[in-house]
Amino acid sequence: MSGAATTDASAIDAVVIGAAGYIGGELVRLLLGHPRVRLRAASSRTFAGQRVDGVHPNLRGATDLVFTPEEEAPACDVLFLAAGHGRSVELLRRHGENARIVVDLGGDLRIVDPEAHRRAYPDDDRPEGLARSFTAGWPEARRDALRASDRISVPGCMAMAAILALHPLAAAGAVEPDVTVDARTGSSGAGATAGDHNLHAERSGAMRVFAPRGHRHEGEIAQATGLRVRMTATGVEAVRGVQVLCRARAREPVDERAVRAIYREAYQREPFVRVVAQKRGIYRYPEPKILLGSNYCDVGFAVSDDGRDVVAIAALDNLMKGGAGNAVQCVNIRMGWPERLGLEFAGLHPL
Amino acid sequence: MSGAATTDASAIDAVVIGAAGYIGGELVRLLLGHPRVRLRAASSRTFAGQRVDGVHPNLRGATDLVFTPEEEAPACDVLFLAAGHGRSVELLRRHGENARIVVDLGGDLRIVDPEAHRRAYPDDDRPEGLARSFTAGWPEARRDALRASDRISVPGCMAMAAILALHPLAAAGAVEPDVTVDARTGSSGAGATAGDHNLHAERSGAMRVFAPRGHRHEGEIAQATGLRVRMTATGVEAVRGVQVLCRARAREPVDERAVRAIYREAYQREPFVRVVAQKRGIYRYPEPKILLGSNYCDVGFAVSDDGRDVVAIAALDNLMKGGAGNAVQCVNIRMGWPERLGLEFAGLHPL
Amino acid sequence: MSGAATTDASAIDAVVIGAAGYIGGELVRLLLGHPRVRLRAASSRTFAGQRVDGVHPNLRGATDLVFTPEEEAPACDVLFLAAGHGRSVELLRRHGENARIVVDLGGDLRIVDPEAHRRAYPDDDRPEGLARSFTAGWPEARRDALRASDRISVPGCMAMAAILALHPLAAAGAVEPDVTVDARTGSSGAGATAGDHNLHAERSGAMRVFAPRGHRHEGEIAQATGLRVRMTATGVEAVRGVQVLCRARAREPVDERAVRAIYREAYQREPFVRVVAQKRGIYRYPEPKILLGSNYCDVGFAVSDDGRDVVAIAALDNLMKGGAGNAVQCVNIRMGWPERLGLEFAGLHPL
Amino acid sequence: MSGAATTDASAIDAVVIGAAGYIGGELVRLLLGHPRVRLRAASSRTFAGQRVDGVHPNLRGATDLVFTPEEEAPACDVLFLAAGHGRSVELLRRHGENARIVVDLGGDLRIVDPEAHRRAYPDDDRPEGLARSFTAGWPEARRDALRASDRISVPGCMAMAAILALHPLAAAGAVEPDVTVDARTGSSGAGATAGDHNLHAERSGAMRVFAPRGHRHEGEIAQATGLRVRMTATGVEAVRGVQVLCRARAREPVDERAVRAIYREAYQREPFVRVVAQKRGIYRYPEPKILLGSNYCDVGFAVSDDGRDVVAIAALDNLMKGGAGNAVQCVNIRMGWPERLGLEFAGLHPL
Repeated sequence: MSGAATTDASAIDAVVIGAAGYIGGELVRLLLGHPRVRLRAASSRTFAGQRVDGVHPNLRGATDLVFTPEEEAPACDVLFLAAGHGRSVELLRRHGENARIVVDLGGDLRIVDPEAHRRAYPDDDRPEGLARSFTAGWPEARRDALRASDRISVPGCMAMAAILALHPLAAAGAVEPDVTVDARTGSSGAGATAGDHNLHAERSGAMRVFAPRGHRHEGEIAQATGLRVRMTATGVEAVRGVQVLCRARAREPVDERAVRAIYREAYQREPFVRVVAQKRGIYRYPEPKILLGSNYCDVGFAVSDDGRDVVAIAALDNLMKGGAGNAVQCVNIRMGWPERLGLEFAGLHPL
Repeated sequence: MSGAATTDASAIDAVVIGAAGYIGGELVRLLLGHPRVRLRAASSRTFAGQRVDGVHPNLRGATDLVFTPEEEAPACDVLFLAAGHGRSVELLRRHGENARIVVDLGGDLRIVDPEAHRRAYPDDDRPEGLARSFTAGWPEARRDALRASDRISVPGCMAMAAILALHPLAAAGAVEPDVTVDARTGSSGAGATAGDHNLHAERSGAMRVFAPRGHRHEGEIAQATGLRVRMTATGVEAVRGVQVLCRARAREPVDERAVRAIYREAYQREPFVRVVAQKRGIYRYPEPKILLGSNYCDVGFAVSDDGRDVVAIAALDNLMKGGAGNAVQCVNIRMGWPERLGLEFAGLHPL
Repeated sequence: MSGAATTDASAIDAVVIGAAGYIGGELVRLLLGHPRVRLRAASSRTFAGQRVDGVHPNLRGATDLVFTPEEEAPACDVLFLAAGHGRSVELLRRHGENARIVVDLGGDLRIVDPEAHRRAYPDDDRPEGLARSFTAGWPEARRDALRASDRISVPGCMAMAAILALHPLAAAGAVEPDVTVDARTGSSGAGATAGDHNLHAERSGAMRVFAPRGHRHEGEIAQATGLRVRMTATGVEAVRGVQVLCRARAREPVDERAVRAIYREAYQREPFVRVVAQKRGIYRYPEPKILLGSNYCDVGFAVSDDGRDVVAIAALDNLMKGGAGNAVQCVNIRMGWPERLGLEFAGLHPL
Repeated sequence: MSGAATTDASAIDAVVIGAAGYIGGELVRLLLGHPRVRLRAASSRTFAGQRVDGVHPNLRGATDLVFTPEEEAPACDVLFLAAGHGRSVELLRRHGENARIVVDLGGDLRIVDPEAHRRAYPDDDRPEGLARSFTAGWPEARRDALRASDRISVPGCMAMAAILALHPLAAAGAVEPDVTVDARTGSSGAGATAGDHNLHAERSGAMRVFAPRGHRHEGEIAQATGLRVRMTATGVEAVRGVQVLCRARAREPVDERAVRAIYREAYQREPFVRVVAQKRGIYRYPEPKILLGSNYCDVGFAVSDDGRDVVAIAALDNLMKGGAGNAVQCVNIRMGWPERLGLEFAGLHPL
């Protein structure tokens, strides 16, 4: 047993940098189970030399891999950068040449416009034009570009949810440009490094408005949808899971049938977006808990009686469709493989 | 040891109808600990004849009371109606004459305007004018009226939070009339009757948008603030606790200092509203978990850089300031007692 | 898209009775994803005529199946009985003839000895000898029998964990016959029917000793291990997951190396039992949360300094290795398929 | 408003060292609400100069106190040492002379026998005889000694629960000397310092056996009861709360009536121990969730049919009867005040 679980001779070699983090660990899990990928290395600065399953105990029995130091990450076909915000430029410089395909999961290269990027990431020093060479890891709108792209930047978790909720409405010209996004998130989105903010006794049972305005995913959502976005973000009791509740004003009065048609049109052939807006039942709108471990984003909606207000709701697992799962979906597209490969898990009920 | 814990000869007699519910149980707890109140009876249709501490085990050792059948509720000085929505009119008819003061905790008499009431409670059949004889149990704005009122209607939990967040802004003329309210709530708000909606395995870890539009507290908030309210409500993982996140548009650009001044002016002498909007710390905005068991409502805010958008946040314990605690505060006012009497508990950290 | 997801012509037909329950839903999920199985019907008395994904929303997009009435369950190759305790005999009578293989997941047929069975299930009326015709669904000890058995009775969730923890010690003659089992369990083990016992506000955050003595899994553990078992069971805050902490007295003083050797010998070739007893780390003993959705049972141990006391710990997902997953593993063995087929999911970290 | 909330001229002055921790914060809360105590200072090495309500946000509005540096702790009538294990000896040396009464909440002085102490706290260097000058803060058995003692050592949280469960049985000579204790605990017991062990994403939903043998509270329980104790400790999902499940072997067969009589005799006049062992109901055995914030320890039991095995169960809030609340109860006894003073809170239902 080694890190490389597949025996397919045509498989490609993959490396994960930042593999001890939560998105990194999810990439390792998915790549070990992917029939066309050989995981060659999982690197970590903090845990180099230690077993991967010591940090990610769900992988006991699935791999004997040991974390490699970052600087020893080997050449590969696809390199995943999951070391966190602010490190992508440096890692690209050092490792970019050694990989045919690079998938970045940090925030550094998501926003193309330099000024909008600086608003979201003030400390960031980014070479002019670098972000422009990356394709957004947004399969539902960039599938064709992804097929031909060797540089992919995966959206942020809350941004991905909001974009999938809002883009069809914006693209159909159905809503006014001013929208609000109220995001709720579990604790894993804050990463695997211990601090007062994610201490169990403080974070447990929280309804913590950590961003009442100006959350940095605003710029990403605006870029993708062309809308003007005001966003709040609240930590609620959960480890995994993101839900966004978006409000838009209809340009012309609409009814639920019309909105449903817009979403159906946008997503009916999508393998990982489901339209969920039912008349009854406790799961009649999108809810993260039944999505954990799956790559689905569920999207739902409601319309006010006068047809002027549209509420759009989306839910996903922040480490999956909001990170690692979405990255694997992009690689599947890039390689011309079936899009669901290695991403078949349906989620659990109850959980 | 009996139900009546006080030995004060000048104490008044109280009765709770609907005492086996969650708000009813909280009333029993508060009244047993209140130095000026003798709890004469706790009634329940379902549990008549059983011990109160069998249903509310936190009261073991505090009372030997047995639930009385509703129809045997004795005459008293103050009668609390906590039997749930749709029963207040009937209970008033049967028991109203036997009590000097009636405090209603159902939704039936909160909205005065008949049409607005019917929108919120379509099945309700309510005598013309009855609601008008009740004073809103909203101490911060109705204190003088409450001193002289023998009929008090306590606001809904989410409504109370939103009213306390929005009213100062509306009263100061600082915001445009169109506002949104996104409420998050624990499971106790749905009551003590078991059903699929509050089954632990389904409700645990939920982010359940149970009202994406048209929540019936909209009418109550509109009535209290004069604003046009669009509201959503989401169940999150918690037993107790409500948080509202409200968005308003400033009529003229404002800064945080100006908004802070509005709230300070409104609440600086209030015993149970705290203005919480700090630059740092994990509890820098209102959060229910540190309020559980207390009668506080914490109110906070943020303002966008351009001064046009105001986000107002409020948090409370739905069974306390959102129900039983607020009811006791109203009675303290009515009786001319110190307002904090029996409501001194500060909340726990951590929890 | 239909209930039958596989296109393998050699696949077998499966039917689940009691498919709206939690173990039933898990069976549906696993069978829909199993490459050698066609799920022909999912039956439910309560939900007949409704969509399966209305009850199990994680299956949206995975199936269009509608629950069939129990009496219309079609003939099939393998029939799973997941309708709960007390119904297996009746269901066998009605449907047993129509299925080549029957896998029972209720408690009715687990204990062979009539008297021991009556102690555990006093209300149960069971034909003499019926239990004897069933093979215990305990792959680690009954693999050869399972290969040839058309009647399989899957152990209870807490029993399975305790048996996997204790049997190697008992089989090796390493411990005295008197043992204790302290089991902790999530709420899904109590089923999908709402009641006061699983109301969210009451069950949330619980440490509820619901069986301080005489839990009915005692008889099952005793039967499998030959030990005398005293068991307690406590509900703790979790939806899925069981952990048992077992205490035994060593016959001769032992050290950790010796105990590790016993478990290694027992489980080194087992696909779904992992020995977890490490010197460091927060997951150094078995813990359910990293196993949810997986079919693993992790087993660990500690030994007192004097070598006389052995603590054995096991953890599993009660709906998987404690129910549906174990049932599928048994069918894989029965059919001669690879044992991991359809059970590859590794579990999530963090969760 | 200052730290000293009381206006009673006869009140005593109190100081808390280690006031930024969880037990320290609870002491601050209780002392601020205590009618006979003036809180003169709350000290912290880490947070000196910062507001107390910045760390303990439940105290907003209750105090304007700022943490003082430890070395500036003023002289006082009663000094509480809550700085954690390993610091009591040093703090006594520096501050012991400045306080009439010292209440230590660390582990350093609980076990009198030097060898037993070293087994529990191997790194500890303790002057010969120091522990002997302290009275155990165990009101139920040491009330008379506490009335006359100026040096009090409060038991550990799990130890207190186990002692209250086991001591009556031991004192009555009803059980054999070998007992086991299985303790379950929330995360606040591990303190307020962030680390991997209490990271929310890892600790959430845990069933973490962090001590399968040799937990250091064993020595304390043995000292108090005279029994031979084997103990395990497991972290479960909770912030506050401890539950112990103890097993003992009856010396002569007993029935539940006899055991109930033993507990009644021991605790019928105790203000903070309730005997809870009922035939029905979901709270029929002791459970921490209804005790949070209260100073109660609930004790319950079950007996096997043959009368040979006794299971004793106890639950408490680890920061209250397991720490700060118990310390205040001891001071009430020492001062000759009513024992419930400042400790009236009953706990919440539901929570």
